[in-house]
Amino acid sequence: MGEPTDEILEATYRALCEHGFADLTVQDIADHSEKSKATIHYHYDSKHDLFTAFLEYLYDDYTEHVDAVDGDTHRDRLLALVEFSLAEGGDVPGIDFRTAMLEIKAQAPYDDAFREQLTRFDRYLADRIREVIEAGVDAGEFREDVDPETTAEFLLTTIKGAYTRHVSVDHPLDRIRETLAEYVETRLVADRAEVDA
Amino acid sequence: MGEPTDEILEATYRALCEHGFADLTVQDIADHSEKSKATIHYHYDSKHDLFTAFLEYLYDDYTEHVDAVDGDTHRDRLLALVEFSLAEGGDVPGIDFRTAMLEIKAQAPYDDAFREQLTRFDRYLADRIREVIEAGVDAGEFREDVDPETTAEFLLTTIKGAYTRHVSVDHPLDRIRETLAEYVETRLVADRAEVDA
Repeated sequence: MGEPTDEILEATYRALCEHGFADLTVQDIADHSEKSKATIHYHYDSKHDLFTAFLEYLYDDYTEHVDAVDGDTHRDRLLALVEFSLAEGGDVPGIDFRTAMLEIKAQAPYDDAFREQLTRFDRYLADRIREVIEAGVDAGEFREDVDPETTAEFLLTTIKGAYTRHVSVDHPLDRIRETLAEYVETRLVADRAEVDA
Repeated sequence: MGEPTDEILEATYRALCEHGFADLTVQDIADHSEKSKATIHYHYDSKHDLFTAFLEYLYDDYTEHVDAVDGDTHRDRLLALVEFSLAEGGDVPGIDFRTAMLEIKAQAPYDDAFREQLTRFDRYLADRIREVIEAGVDAGEFREDVDPETTAEFLLTTIKGAYTRHVSVDHPLDRIRETLAEYVETRLVADRAEVDA
C-alpha cells in the first residue's frame, strides 16, 4: 500500500472497467492515472508485465474480501460465500470488471503468468469453500456423507459458469444463487437430511 | 453446404484452432483457405461480419451434433448430453477451439451480434436438457419433484463453468463429469429416490 505503483494499478482497474481488456492501451491507463504513459512504461515494460502485477495486486484485495465473508453458522458462512461470489456490483467488482476478467481468463491459455495468477484465485475460493464445508461436517451441521472436496469443486464450477453466462449471454445471476442456496439447504444441511440408505 | 463461403468458414475454424480469436487476422484465415484475402474481404466487410457468419455456421453444426446425442432411456440421454458437453477433443471441438470460443464469449458484451448468436447456443442446449428431463419426469423415470427448468439451468451453468475453468486454469473436465453423473443418478433418477417428505 502507498507504493507509487499502487496508483497505476488502481488506474488499471478503473481503465479496465471502462474499456475492457482486449483494446486497452497504456495511454488509457495513463488517462485514468496521475502518472504519465512514460512513468507507467518505466515501471512496467509491457502490457503483459503490468497485468501480471495487476493480477497480483487484485489477488491481495480479493483474498481480503473473501476472508471478510462471515456468518453465525457454517451454513451461513457457506451461503455468504456463494452470495459474495455471485454478487452483482457494489463493493465487489461490478459487471464491467467481470467482463474484463473473462477476457483475461480467455487469454490465460496463451500466457503462463496469467494462468498462474488466475489459478491462485480459483484455488483460494475453492479452498475457503472446502474448509467451511469440512468444518460444517465436523460440527455435525452438514451431513456426514458430504464430501467437502467434491462439493466445493461443484459449487465453485457452478459459480464460474454463472459468471461466464452472465457476461456472455446476459443470463441473470439471481436464479443460480437461489438454486445453489437450495442445494446447500437440501443436500448439505444435516437437519433437513432425508432418511438415507 | 457447398456455398463458396463455406470454405472460408471452415478455414476460419482451422485458423481459430491454431491462432485463437484475439490476434486472428483475415490473412491467417486466407492462409488456411483456398480463397485469397481479397476474396474473403469481398464476402465479409469486416472481422465482425465474418465472425457473425461463422457463429451462424457453427450453430447449425452444433445443433446437428446435439440432436445426434441419444440413449436408450431418458437417463441415458441426459447423461449422454452431459458427456457430449464436457467431452475433450475428438469429433467435437477440441481444447484450442474452446479457448477461441471463450475469447468470443468475453467479447460478447461489446458486440450485440455475437451475444445474440451465443445466446442461441446457450438456449439450444438448455432447451434440449430441459426436454429430456421433462420427458423423464413424465415417464416416471425421474422423480416427480424435479423441476426441469431449474435443473436444466443448473446443469448447463455447471457445464459452462467446467469449460471456463478448463480453459482458464487448466482444471480437469473429468471430475465435474463424474459429479454431474452422480447428481443425475442420486437427485433425478426415481428408483434411487430417498424416502422423502
